[in-house]
Amino acid sequence: MRTYFDCIPCIVRQALEAVRFVTDDEAIHEQVLREVLHSASVMDLRKSPPVMGQRIHRLIRRLTGNVDPYRSVKQHFNRFAMDRYPELKEKINQSSDPLQKAVRLAIAGNIIDFGVTSNLDDLNVQKAIEHSLTAPLKGNLEDFRKSVLEAQDILYLADNAGEIVFDRLLIEQIPLERITLAVKGSPVINDATVVDAQHVGLTDIVEVIDNGSDAPGTVLEECSETFRRRFNKADLVIAKGQGNYETLNDVDKSIFFLLKVKCPVIARHIGCEIGSLVIERRISAMTSGKEEEENKAGTG
Amino acid sequence: MRTYFDCIPCIVRQALEAVRFVTDDEAIHEQVLREVLHSASVMDLRKSPPVMGQRIHRLIRRLTGNVDPYRSVKQHFNRFAMDRYPELKEKINQSSDPLQKAVRLAIAGNIIDFGVTSNLDDLNVQKAIEHSLTAPLKGNLEDFRKSVLEAQDILYLADNAGEIVFDRLLIEQIPLERITLAVKGSPVINDATVVDAQHVGLTDIVEVIDNGSDAPGTVLEECSETFRRRFNKADLVIAKGQGNYETLNDVDKSIFFLLKVKCPVIARHIGCEIGSLVIERRISAMTSGKEEEENKAGTG
Repeated sequence: MRTYFDCIPCIVRQALEAVRFVTDDEAIHEQVLREVLHSASVMDLRKSPPVMGQRIHRLIRRLTGNVDPYRSVKQHFNRFAMDRYPELKEKINQSSDPLQKAVRLAIAGNIIDFGVTSNLDDLNVQKAIEHSLTAPLKGNLEDFRKSVLEAQDILYLADNAGEIVFDRLLIEQIPLERITLAVKGSPVINDATVVDAQHVGLTDIVEVIDNGSDAPGTVLEECSETFRRRFNKADLVIAKGQGNYETLNDVDKSIFFLLKVKCPVIARHIGCEIGSLVIERRISAMTSGKEEEENKAGTG
Repeated sequence: MRTYFDCIPCIVRQALEAVRFVTDDEAIHEQVLREVLHSASVMDLRKSPPVMGQRIHRLIRRLTGNVDPYRSVKQHFNRFAMDRYPELKEKINQSSDPLQKAVRLAIAGNIIDFGVTSNLDDLNVQKAIEHSLTAPLKGNLEDFRKSVLEAQDILYLADNAGEIVFDRLLIEQIPLERITLAVKGSPVINDATVVDAQHVGLTDIVEVIDNGSDAPGTVLEECSETFRRRFNKADLVIAKGQGNYETLNDVDKSIFFLLKVKCPVIARHIGCEIGSLVIERRISAMTSGKEEEENKAGTG
């Protein structure tokens, strides 16, 4: 997905929120703000929003000298979600449709996203869990169910720390030997890395690889060669969250995007409301010529 | 008031909304967006937000070749407010405290501000009128009443078209010979100019001057020499709206600001909620040293 005009003021706001979250130093706030404004003024709008997100968070880490500013947030939400894991696992086991319940919870966990907002607490997550149990699912669950049953080599692209506990609940509904879980190559925002996968026990149950990149999404040309081989080889990709949707939406591959919609541009792009629980299977833009229509239909 | 970091993403969003309001040409949307981002990346944050607003709207007018893009909006709200004038005038006449009622309505009219949002309709204005009749007034009405009674030479700085009908209701509560009304020198957003003052009959009842400037506020150094002389000579200034607050808040002059608060930065600066009806009398920052404290207390 390209960067829409509407993304720009939001990117500037997110950059300011993020640098304030990481440091109280107003000189650094100003420097980040000015550099982001400059970058945005010359940016290639054909690139997806996470490309700018990557640049912003590299800048924040460089200026603050903090290589992993969201470490405590990631630890907090890993623990928070692990504390709820037994109860949620029980809910799934007692359900008449465990896969559906697990999909709902995996999408609920996508609320734990510090890219969109830096104001997130336990209560927001608890509410998202409750909402997910009964809210309508936008998308074709049966198509997802069938594809998951048939696929022999599934690549599951994680999004955030904490959220990966909810992913674990879904992964446990699929034959584990068919799944590889991919996390980020190094810290960016609160995206999950291998350390998080270890903390929540995912490395004990499935193969975990990293994508070699620090983009808050999956920018294939920035990922490692190893990751790209695994991506190409997989017969099904399950991609979590907005960042993966924004970066992989146009890729010619069988991908299910599971996400909670948190911004008006993506809501419009998918055709749903903010807050929706989405299972989206996209046909490649390059083969369908759909992208061109979308750009025309977009708001800018 | 200086430009706070929080103003920046909002300025970018406002610029995008404004250019979309004025033209459907996406190439112009992009050009405005990129130029505003660049300007913001190098801007002097000691200047007030309306200085950037002036630059943005000059750019939009230049790129679209439309010297007065908000003309129809201004005409609409002048008519809308004039249609309600007899009923509101009657409300004031029947009130036990006509000045208070007129102050409330003058502040209510300040909702008609296309600088803050381009989404404003008759219903918003009707609701603001009703809200203003009973909502708490933040500020010292008795101080305002006393000052207005004592002053011999009052300069009333208008803000927007449509709103000036509400200003007329307040002006009519003050001996007319003591009042001069000042409007903008040329079109910017939906700010009132002499044409609007004529349309709503203000030129028939008080002296109307223009300030010689197209800033959406009162940037004194940009105003005409004639205006500045009148400003300096006045023993009381009544200044309407956020733009005047932002540009005159630090000026060493007896000024009452009447405004409806529409943004979080001004709400924090004044110490009130968004939506508040405010009568604010500021002591000059330069004589009190208050500005320095405020900057420390600010959020960026």
